[in-house]
Amino acid sequence: MIRNEFDRKAIGAIRYIGLKAIQIAKGGHVGMTISAAPITYTLFTKFININPNNGKWINRDRFVLSGGHGSMSLYPIFYLAGLFNKKDIENFKIENSKTPGHPEFENKISNFIDASTGPLGQGLAMAVGMALAQKHAELKTKDKYPDLFTNFTYVVCGDGDFQEGISYEAMAIASKYELNKLIVLYDSNKFQLDSAVSKVSNENMKLRAEAQGWFYLKCSNDPEEIEKCIKTAQRTSKPSLIEVDTIIAEGLLTANSNKGHHGVVNDEDIKKFLSYHQLDFQDWNIDQNILDYFEKTVIQRGLKKVKEWEEKISKYNLDSSFKNWEKIINDDFDYSKLFNEIKIENKNQATRVYLKQFLSSLENENPFTIATCADLVSSTNVAIGNKTILEGGQSLPIGIREFAMGAIVNGVTLYGAGFRIIGGTFLVFADYIKSAIRLGAMMKIPAIYAFTHDSYLVGGDGPTHQPYDQLPMLRAIDNLNVYRVADEEELRFAMIEAYSSKENSSVLVLSRQNIKSLNVNLTFKQFKKGAYIVKDCKNPDYVIAASGSEVNLALEIAKDLKNVRVVSVPCLDKVVKISEKELKELFGAKKSLITLESSADFKWFRLHLNNQNNVHLGAYTFGKSMDGEKLYKDKGFDKEIILKHILENKN
Amino acid sequence: MIRNEFDRKAIGAIRYIGLKAIQIAKGGHVGMTISAAPITYTLFTKFININPNNGKWINRDRFVLSGGHGSMSLYPIFYLAGLFNKKDIENFKIENSKTPGHPEFENKISNFIDASTGPLGQGLAMAVGMALAQKHAELKTKDKYPDLFTNFTYVVCGDGDFQEGISYEAMAIASKYELNKLIVLYDSNKFQLDSAVSKVSNENMKLRAEAQGWFYLKCSNDPEEIEKCIKTAQRTSKPSLIEVDTIIAEGLLTANSNKGHHGVVNDEDIKKFLSYHQLDFQDWNIDQNILDYFEKTVIQRGLKKVKEWEEKISKYNLDSSFKNWEKIINDDFDYSKLFNEIKIENKNQATRVYLKQFLSSLENENPFTIATCADLVSSTNVAIGNKTILEGGQSLPIGIREFAMGAIVNGVTLYGAGFRIIGGTFLVFADYIKSAIRLGAMMKIPAIYAFTHDSYLVGGDGPTHQPYDQLPMLRAIDNLNVYRVADEEELRFAMIEAYSSKENSSVLVLSRQNIKSLNVNLTFKQFKKGAYIVKDCKNPDYVIAASGSEVNLALEIAKDLKNVRVVSVPCLDKVVKISEKELKELFGAKKSLITLESSADFKWFRLHLNNQNNVHLGAYTFGKSMDGEKLYKDKGFDKEIILKHILENKN
Repeated sequence: MIRNEFDRKAIGAIRYIGLKAIQIAKGGHVGMTISAAPITYTLFTKFININPNNGKWINRDRFVLSGGHGSMSLYPIFYLAGLFNKKDIENFKIENSKTPGHPEFENKISNFIDASTGPLGQGLAMAVGMALAQKHAELKTKDKYPDLFTNFTYVVCGDGDFQEGISYEAMAIASKYELNKLIVLYDSNKFQLDSAVSKVSNENMKLRAEAQGWFYLKCSNDPEEIEKCIKTAQRTSKPSLIEVDTIIAEGLLTANSNKGHHGVVNDEDIKKFLSYHQLDFQDWNIDQNILDYFEKTVIQRGLKKVKEWEEKISKYNLDSSFKNWEKIINDDFDYSKLFNEIKIENKNQATRVYLKQFLSSLENENPFTIATCADLVSSTNVAIGNKTILEGGQSLPIGIREFAMGAIVNGVTLYGAGFRIIGGTFLVFADYIKSAIRLGAMMKIPAIYAFTHDSYLVGGDGPTHQPYDQLPMLRAIDNLNVYRVADEEELRFAMIEAYSSKENSSVLVLSRQNIKSLNVNLTFKQFKKGAYIVKDCKNPDYVIAASGSEVNLALEIAKDLKNVRVVSVPCLDKVVKISEKELKELFGAKKSLITLESSADFKWFRLHLNNQNNVHLGAYTFGKSMDGEKLYKDKGFDKEIILKHILENKN
Repeated sequence: MIRNEFDRKAIGAIRYIGLKAIQIAKGGHVGMTISAAPITYTLFTKFININPNNGKWINRDRFVLSGGHGSMSLYPIFYLAGLFNKKDIENFKIENSKTPGHPEFENKISNFIDASTGPLGQGLAMAVGMALAQKHAELKTKDKYPDLFTNFTYVVCGDGDFQEGISYEAMAIASKYELNKLIVLYDSNKFQLDSAVSKVSNENMKLRAEAQGWFYLKCSNDPEEIEKCIKTAQRTSKPSLIEVDTIIAEGLLTANSNKGHHGVVNDEDIKKFLSYHQLDFQDWNIDQNILDYFEKTVIQRGLKKVKEWEEKISKYNLDSSFKNWEKIINDDFDYSKLFNEIKIENKNQATRVYLKQFLSSLENENPFTIATCADLVSSTNVAIGNKTILEGGQSLPIGIREFAMGAIVNGVTLYGAGFRIIGGTFLVFADYIKSAIRLGAMMKIPAIYAFTHDSYLVGGDGPTHQPYDQLPMLRAIDNLNVYRVADEEELRFAMIEAYSSKENSSVLVLSRQNIKSLNVNLTFKQFKKGAYIVKDCKNPDYVIAASGSEVNLALEIAKDLKNVRVVSVPCLDKVVKISEKELKELFGAKKSLITLESSADFKWFRLHLNNQNNVHLGAYTFGKSMDGEKLYKDKGFDKEIILKHILENKN
């Protein structure tokens, strides 16, 4: 029950604009558009500070609409405040508009969306990542520069978000890392797509929140109550969950039922809606005092805050206290220089071993780099130093919560301010994270992962731990570079590309077992194409191309062949994009190209240019609990078998 | 603290055998081997009824070691009871032994593992599926045959299981479906691989369990206390969580630290272990009275229960009361007959629409078929009737909990007794379930999924909802048939194969939009190869092969070409396995083979046989929030564009 007359009208305006957009788009999520509006209204008019001139201002309050299908509880606020125009609203779900079906992050200052949402639960988990980044940034700077990073992170979640497992994982982490500036508002409208929530859940949200160490409050959908709760939440030392008792599709005929979740609306529906809420809007006309209020709060309060902040930080001289801070915060840190300077003394190691040294170099050198790992640091080496971020360090132990880890990698990266975070686990458990990796790549953010134990050579842990089907899953994702590196030099360049990237995410695929270093004086220019010659030969009869662990096998096979070239392919995703001419230069063989990788992935066929003499040798079946080396051979990765195959190839 | 002298020795025997195995295997999870032993001991000697002669007895108590890495807290019990011999234990992690690194389910009576475990959290969720199947079976039969399905489901979980999001999802479902015969024992040993649990969690397990409507108990690791708790748990009307206070690696130097999680052991370690626990085993010798006790409890109690059960059910005449029950329970139901009899009156529909009719035919006809859906029934049609299993029906609304849904699909299927369950959501959210789909396929069980909204044609919901990268992810999994069907007849046969399967899992990929029926009198024999000719032509210049929605596009293109054949490929996974001769018969073209699918997947290249005139047209990039048909064309799925491409192909 919205008590204040003005609030009722202003919230009515958000809902009215939302319904108009849904009417034009011939369908949309009317339920949350209506139920969440009192929450988004309170947040944006009373709390959230944005910079209207720069959607990427580093100290803006972050806002994530985790139930992204409720986008029309958000876009109308931007419209009423003057950030969007009528056409933007009319173009709901239309190509290249500011109002896609679900909110979409873009890395440009005209975009006011802090995270792309839609896949439920991930919005909340990304917000945990943003709040972690804020906490870390504040801890690192507050002594000298207390005003630099002070933002809050606000989230609006629906029932679905809280049913997803990732929400519990993320909430556990938020509590453990004392994210007191994270405030989650639950649009508790009691209905989901198929049914009442009570049909599939009997969870006690208060107990749930308290079990995980959260501060829990509940209130009605009256903005005054919501405001009071948020103010209380701002003062606690814990992350806060505010359950707001809302009504789905309130004022429509489908209110208070799952039929109100989404649908179409016509003039008659809107008329009934307006009458129910005692509103008299028509033809998009909104009372000037309402428009003025949105402008005054969303725009002017934001501008005032930005000005205050800019005045304070203009007196700061960051670089005088912290080496490279201006560069770091402006995302201009020179990773190339840092990683190029690393000297690897012990060669012929597992590629996961080198990772440790590269990551260590980031400690203190760039405090806005974080490493997080799903309880496998001792196996994967995904850590930066020994201290957690709460202890002033750069590591983020996250427990066995892979999916939330992925969303948190996205969230920390989305925070901006030059943040980079690498997430680690075994390659086979990339399966748990796939949707988050996809979402990061979709947002074109430089999320980074290191997945180790990359083949059957894992051995005794058996088929649940032996990957063979993960590379095609990852390589099918656009804007994602998957690097399966063969030695320390390939890893060096992969690290440089991954950390320097502004437009794509990266996965480093690393071996558990030792691999002989290639020692070929690889240059970055060679590496950048995704493939390069390891053992050359003009006009070769045979070309053997392989990645990671298999490059050495290829070199072994080559010893017994004449006129043979060996090509290492650290990044197949990039190779398939080079020109046919370049492909021929690298992979053209008089007799046969043999491609080799202990994984499923038919992407290799792209390299074959439909030459019928070419052969691809991959791995397409589950492994076994047994000695890894024997299994590897059993699956065909054996010099004698492959040589025989090549020499007997009748084509 | 284990008070009883005999218990101490018997548990010591389990641990001792476990350590011996780990010593021989040169490494293993000593921590849980030791900490969980009092729990597995109590369960197997006091509660769990198995049939020593048939690991697949349908009324056996189910046991899932969710923390599968603790396999050596389980295998020694089978050894001490005489089910395994010494060689089995010595062959820990050796090829084709009974003791792989993690427990592995096999569908044969000599296998006593109810689920393959290792990927954390999924064991618990599969057990929820088993308990759901038991509940459903009991509800369906108890009035007439109260003794048929009475088993309990027991689970042992570690810290990692409870950190995974899927555990919360599964526990929410267990509570909602009142799974009172599900008893979860928590081996609370307070350390995980990287650290103390407290470093990454501050969750209150009691509140957590109670928030989700579970019955919670806590006890020490004394078997007498554990026994008392289990007895109490058996009497409650809720699922139960018993937290057992255990000590990781107790008796080893690494006890009570994360270093005790896994490692190697030598003679000296074992000596210290024995001394700490006041045990005097050596050279594998275990006191006869201990061996006798395991035999008496694990084997004899089981045999007695089986005999009692068989006597009771021998008096039952199932088929006299329920049509086809003997066939159903023996997994011999004739799905072919049922689905072949379905008459589709309204053709030219979205393939998801036909699904409704096929699934409806299972209602009452085969009560051991269940449909579950992640809150998208109205979009996907994955339901069997309107009633939930608690209401006596066959549908299982599961909330927005995709990952748990996948594990529950596995669990229900693993229950056996002819159970089939189909899980549904949008294709893009298969990403949330990937690891469970993989695990089902690995176990070679007939898990079934229907994933709808299979292309860019989803439209306005935008790139988070538009799949293009899911098919390669799924097709890379062995033992999984992915069917992307083009009309009602293809769906019919795909349903028959999926439901009749005994050895592989299946995914049905279905369209949101209407598709013109092919009307070609398809036979099952044609369908079984995975591809068949839709529009024939002897010695064609062109062959266009496509799947699902794109088959009609192929037919449209063919209208403007001479000497053209069109092939529909409902199951690419099967086609890539047929002989080269058969491939040539189907796909051999004088000029060019054009393969067409609005998805990434290079598996199509397998069909090209490296003929350089062949062309594959796929989709490799994220979509946009916009009109689906326009987007589809923008991505190249347009008759004119493709025709031009074919005719201008200079090769």
